[in-house]
Amino acid sequence: MTALSRKRQGIIPPMPGEFDFISWIRSQQRPSELAQLSSGDDLAILKWKADDLLLVGVDQVLDTVHFDSRVHSPRSIGAKVMNRNLSDCAAMACLPAAAVATVALPRGISMDYAKELYLGMKEAGDIFDCQVVGGDTATWDGKLAMTLSILGRSAGIRPITRGSAKPGDRIYVTGPLGGSSAGRHMTFQPRVHLARELASKYKLTAMIDLSDGLSRDLGHICEESKVGALINAKLLPLHKDIDDVQKSGWRTIDHAVHEGEDYELLFTAPACDHPQVIMIGDIRAEPGIDWIIDSEQTRLEPKGWEHEI
Amino acid sequence: MTALSRKRQGIIPPMPGEFDFISWIRSQQRPSELAQLSSGDDLAILKWKADDLLLVGVDQVLDTVHFDSRVHSPRSIGAKVMNRNLSDCAAMACLPAAAVATVALPRGISMDYAKELYLGMKEAGDIFDCQVVGGDTATWDGKLAMTLSILGRSAGIRPITRGSAKPGDRIYVTGPLGGSSAGRHMTFQPRVHLARELASKYKLTAMIDLSDGLSRDLGHICEESKVGALINAKLLPLHKDIDDVQKSGWRTIDHAVHEGEDYELLFTAPACDHPQVIMIGDIRAEPGIDWIIDSEQTRLEPKGWEHEI
Repeated sequence: MTALSRKRQGIIPPMPGEFDFISWIRSQQRPSELAQLSSGDDLAILKWKADDLLLVGVDQVLDTVHFDSRVHSPRSIGAKVMNRNLSDCAAMACLPAAAVATVALPRGISMDYAKELYLGMKEAGDIFDCQVVGGDTATWDGKLAMTLSILGRSAGIRPITRGSAKPGDRIYVTGPLGGSSAGRHMTFQPRVHLARELASKYKLTAMIDLSDGLSRDLGHICEESKVGALINAKLLPLHKDIDDVQKSGWRTIDHAVHEGEDYELLFTAPACDHPQVIMIGDIRAEPGIDWIIDSEQTRLEPKGWEHEI
Repeated sequence: MTALSRKRQGIIPPMPGEFDFISWIRSQQRPSELAQLSSGDDLAILKWKADDLLLVGVDQVLDTVHFDSRVHSPRSIGAKVMNRNLSDCAAMACLPAAAVATVALPRGISMDYAKELYLGMKEAGDIFDCQVVGGDTATWDGKLAMTLSILGRSAGIRPITRGSAKPGDRIYVTGPLGGSSAGRHMTFQPRVHLARELASKYKLTAMIDLSDGLSRDLGHICEESKVGALINAKLLPLHKDIDDVQKSGWRTIDHAVHEGEDYELLFTAPACDHPQVIMIGDIRAEPGIDWIIDSEQTRLEPKGWEHEI
């Protein structure tokens, strides 16, 4: 565990029983090939394999933005911050290796609640052998916020970036889209193993996980790859959860392309016949994303996301 | 940059102009030996040197806990989150290598303010060639919170942990203590170069940076090393800033041992004659920390930090 946060005035505790909490966390940890048993030090020490590229990123989850602490259990909140990062590993086709995490706890929260946050994170990581090797805990007069930074390793597979899609490539997704706000955004399974399988068996040219929604995430691939795309709306796999969240003014298909937090993979390849993936369109040289919907080809704009500053 | 955070409902923007902000951040980045130019991907890709141990940790800064956004400039806040982590690198005698960061911005904050936060972080990192290679930005109805995860590399020096202090070792600090809340807690310089020099020239047995205060941080070393300590209060270097913050009921020396956020190094060694360090006591086999003050030897208890849950 890294040095503990605390009130800077020096006489107000960082968190009631924080040192007990840290001791408890350490009792949950186990030694691994990569990380020796946590030494309670300022930084964790890892032996990185010489032939592994090191991938690193971070995602946060904030109360009322990524979860609602009045509705969602602390264990599901902890799981989400880990799973969002595991999904980033999937997007690059790398293997999760280790993580460090922070939690900013609203003052007065119980130790049991804090332990549930940790256990949710730990259990989600354990599935992919991704241990939390360090962290920082603090209490504040603010809302619950967690972050997790993940280290991934290439482990024999070249990382798949967003920047190499080519005109003529097909565009694929790994599952039905839309309706995640009905609950799936808290319970999704990151597609780590599927990503590794796809990247090892097929010639993937670009990949991303669908967090911002197909219209925006495909935009990221097109922008980085300097290409455009044409989607066939008829091919888009619609998730049944859309029925539970249908918004006024939104068509069913709008949920599939704009709602986001699907955490399925979106990738491009010259061809892919994997039984789990669905082809939804083509990469083209001409910039911009169009879609064919009701036999008409129109521009697929990212919907209503960004306002002016 | 990692995938962007956003409102899960999918129709509320993650941050006004967030994609512009991310583009601007990318324009600030430069390629390096370790990290190629940010590819705008889910994770940054680093080539880790085979003979370097990888050290990793994370620290957060929270409004009203680690800084006060009504008082401190955004540039100094960004600098602090980087410097707290650089100080963790110093504590292990490793070289900062790269970082990923998150920011949770109060809704309505200006792009200029967000840029200042980033620039403070970047400038503090640049001093030690530590580039921010990825991050996550979100806006919320909450207070300003930043986190930074740092990667350090051993670069030819065995990391100094907290766990190897031995009875008979002397205890040293690298500068005067106390009074940090007068302002130094926002402006300190992490002791990265000094730590490397000390670790290469002397046989350091344990080291930590003074963030929680001497009484607590020496406690961490004693606990991890399974030893005790005896401090001579007369030897403690007192910072002149204590005069500006003297608390009612606190003696001057209480500030030096309990206030914290000094970010000087506290280390143990059989001997060290470096001109910049001050010997303050000895490690002993008997557990617990005593200090000799006014010719009396009493227990030095961590002062008033932890409450019961």
